[in-house]
Amino acid sequence: MRVVDLILKKREGQELNADELTFLIDGYTSGDIPDYQMAAFLMAVFFRSMTSAELGAWADAMLRSGEVLDLSDIPGAKVDKHSTGGVGDKVSLILAPLAVAAGLKVPMISGRGLGHTGGTLDKLESIPGFNVNQTVEVFRDMVENIGSCLIGQTGEIAPADKKIYALRDVTGTVECIPLIASSIMSKKLAEGLDSLVLDVKVGSGAFMKDIENARELATTMIGIGAAMNRPVRALITDMDQPLGLAVGNSLEVIESIETLKGKGPEDLTTLTIELVAEMLDVAGMPADRETLRGYLNDGTALEVFRSIIVRQGGNADVLDDPSLLPKAAKVEPFLAQTSGVITHMDATDVGIAAMELGAGRKTKEDDVDHAVGLVFHKKRGDRVEPGDVILEIHSNPASDVEACIRRLRSSIHIGNGAVKNVPLILERLR
Amino acid sequence: MRVVDLILKKREGQELNADELTFLIDGYTSGDIPDYQMAAFLMAVFFRSMTSAELGAWADAMLRSGEVLDLSDIPGAKVDKHSTGGVGDKVSLILAPLAVAAGLKVPMISGRGLGHTGGTLDKLESIPGFNVNQTVEVFRDMVENIGSCLIGQTGEIAPADKKIYALRDVTGTVECIPLIASSIMSKKLAEGLDSLVLDVKVGSGAFMKDIENARELATTMIGIGAAMNRPVRALITDMDQPLGLAVGNSLEVIESIETLKGKGPEDLTTLTIELVAEMLDVAGMPADRETLRGYLNDGTALEVFRSIIVRQGGNADVLDDPSLLPKAAKVEPFLAQTSGVITHMDATDVGIAAMELGAGRKTKEDDVDHAVGLVFHKKRGDRVEPGDVILEIHSNPASDVEACIRRLRSSIHIGNGAVKNVPLILERLR
Repeated sequence: MRVVDLILKKREGQELNADELTFLIDGYTSGDIPDYQMAAFLMAVFFRSMTSAELGAWADAMLRSGEVLDLSDIPGAKVDKHSTGGVGDKVSLILAPLAVAAGLKVPMISGRGLGHTGGTLDKLESIPGFNVNQTVEVFRDMVENIGSCLIGQTGEIAPADKKIYALRDVTGTVECIPLIASSIMSKKLAEGLDSLVLDVKVGSGAFMKDIENARELATTMIGIGAAMNRPVRALITDMDQPLGLAVGNSLEVIESIETLKGKGPEDLTTLTIELVAEMLDVAGMPADRETLRGYLNDGTALEVFRSIIVRQGGNADVLDDPSLLPKAAKVEPFLAQTSGVITHMDATDVGIAAMELGAGRKTKEDDVDHAVGLVFHKKRGDRVEPGDVILEIHSNPASDVEACIRRLRSSIHIGNGAVKNVPLILERLR
Repeated sequence: MRVVDLILKKREGQELNADELTFLIDGYTSGDIPDYQMAAFLMAVFFRSMTSAELGAWADAMLRSGEVLDLSDIPGAKVDKHSTGGVGDKVSLILAPLAVAAGLKVPMISGRGLGHTGGTLDKLESIPGFNVNQTVEVFRDMVENIGSCLIGQTGEIAPADKKIYALRDVTGTVECIPLIASSIMSKKLAEGLDSLVLDVKVGSGAFMKDIENARELATTMIGIGAAMNRPVRALITDMDQPLGLAVGNSLEVIESIETLKGKGPEDLTTLTIELVAEMLDVAGMPADRETLRGYLNDGTALEVFRSIIVRQGGNADVLDDPSLLPKAAKVEPFLAQTSGVITHMDATDVGIAAMELGAGRKTKEDDVDHAVGLVFHKKRGDRVEPGDVILEIHSNPASDVEACIRRLRSSIHIGNGAVKNVPLILERLR
């Protein structure tokens, strides 16, 4: 098999078989196939796309390029959720305990934030002592006995994906739905899941700016799941403004704790419940929303979270006393300058504003300041008068507050025009 | 300027400016831009093509990546011809002396054969002592005082093209007209030409199998010439069977000498005269076909060739005694097995049949046997009976005669069907 022939096949729009795709993935992972041939192949995929059969084989080969967790001996339905990323998206911190409270096992491997989006690992690390690096043995034991474990990638999950992702980043092939979908699915399905629920974000703060692309991404991932015999469901949800009120690591943990106590913002609470309900449904279990809300109100979910924190070395006292979390040196209000209604927010710019404070990373090598961030008092559709507090800016001396404010001014639109009315959940795809 | 942004620009079908294209070419030549980014860019070019302005800038940057000959101080019109390659194409050996006889200067830098196509340098090296490696000083002096010099690439002509060509070869981006056209033009125009005539081959023995592609290639090269202020003309000519009767280095030199004496096959003679007429016309000089034919019949062109051979160290006695050229150990006939008309030849297969004898190279590193090859007695449209000699096979002990014969049997079609009627010159483009 010659690599150049496989590039030509893709370039000419012909379908590659599983052997050919596995040959490409394995050869590239081992270094036998050079970057330049993979780069040409990926660009050809950008233009020619991949069939369902190709995507299944491609994702499967990426998955098998590294360690694959086998949790089949652990009783119960192992279901995870994956979000395509947004601003203020702290759902995982609430969802994992809630799903466990409802009877699911949630083996959850998360990532870090980059650019305008936050990462679950950074949020968890706001909790003093919380260790996201656990051995596979601890991971298995926690999933079995506590119901969930919240970690970063262990060892070599899908090294092919890692290598291909780095190459795509410098060769202009990031914005390619088949490659995005197979990248996500290869990593997620290496976790040993039975099934998966996707939260595909759409809007100004999401990677997918319009519903058509979001739907295509969701459908593509569902198709890959089907090809690999794993049921996958997707909700397409609003990311045209931040989710909840807090943006920034400690601040989002505080909001998550509030939500786990049944006192969180309605959008965050509802979305989490809907995602858990979908997880239960895909596992063939009853998915009653009121029951789930009850697990928040009565503290059942909170106690699961407590067990997870304790077992992962964190100080669970934060659940009762949020002041134990890192705190910013300065809190100042960001005021409305005109009167009107908040018609629209550019959520990506809100994320970048938080990044300017130090809440996120400009490059992968940056450190994160867990304390800083934004807390909204007003959101889309709310009326404001000059001097009203739209949000609080939590900063430390190293924060670039000026850049943050500049970014916020241009991203929050106040006027008398129509308010863009976006439902929280736009579509459900199975 | 970031390379990835330029890849994205091309991927999205936007036009790159000259600075951006030069940045890519210069960065790639110097090694600052890695192979994988150029590979992605080239694949994007395959799908998005290039505008005329882009092609001009791209070819110009490739040309300026290395040595550019400046022959402007040499009086006379400097015109060259370039063929896109075929089987039995020995036109350059006759054309250069004939064009000089007609008053042109022909600075000619040629290549070697690869695969089914022959190369002018290999043919010239059949002549004992002929040295295709000459200094720039000798090249200039010969162009000025003899009118032509026939050499291989000196030093570093268009190193960017060399590097990009090698990359295209392994990344599935060879069959891309903008890249083919700019590759040819960057090399040709680095020779210090005033203008250029292209012989774009079409048919079973050519790189371009159909007239549409040949026309697009020709038009693209003419456009690049225009962007670089060099008039370029093109003839699209038949390569659906070998040109002339001989295929193989010494054998083609013998046929060239015969043609320079006015006794060559009609297709070869006519095509050479037409190309020289086009060269004269583009230089604004009278282009009378009968005058040109006279230069063949009266030995004027032959004497130019003699001067070139002598100056380049070759034994010019071969012009009077072809037996001084390398001669194959064995000559055997290839006979017709059925009766009918030769309806069609696959010229690529004829070229490969000659390669099996040793006349061509399978890989760039192979040596060529100058003596071996094929001499046709019958061509397309000729009637044959069983036992008639279709061609002679000239072989040496190292030749794989069996493979050659197998290839010939499948490539020469004898039947009673219609003969494909292809004119020698299909189109003229300016």
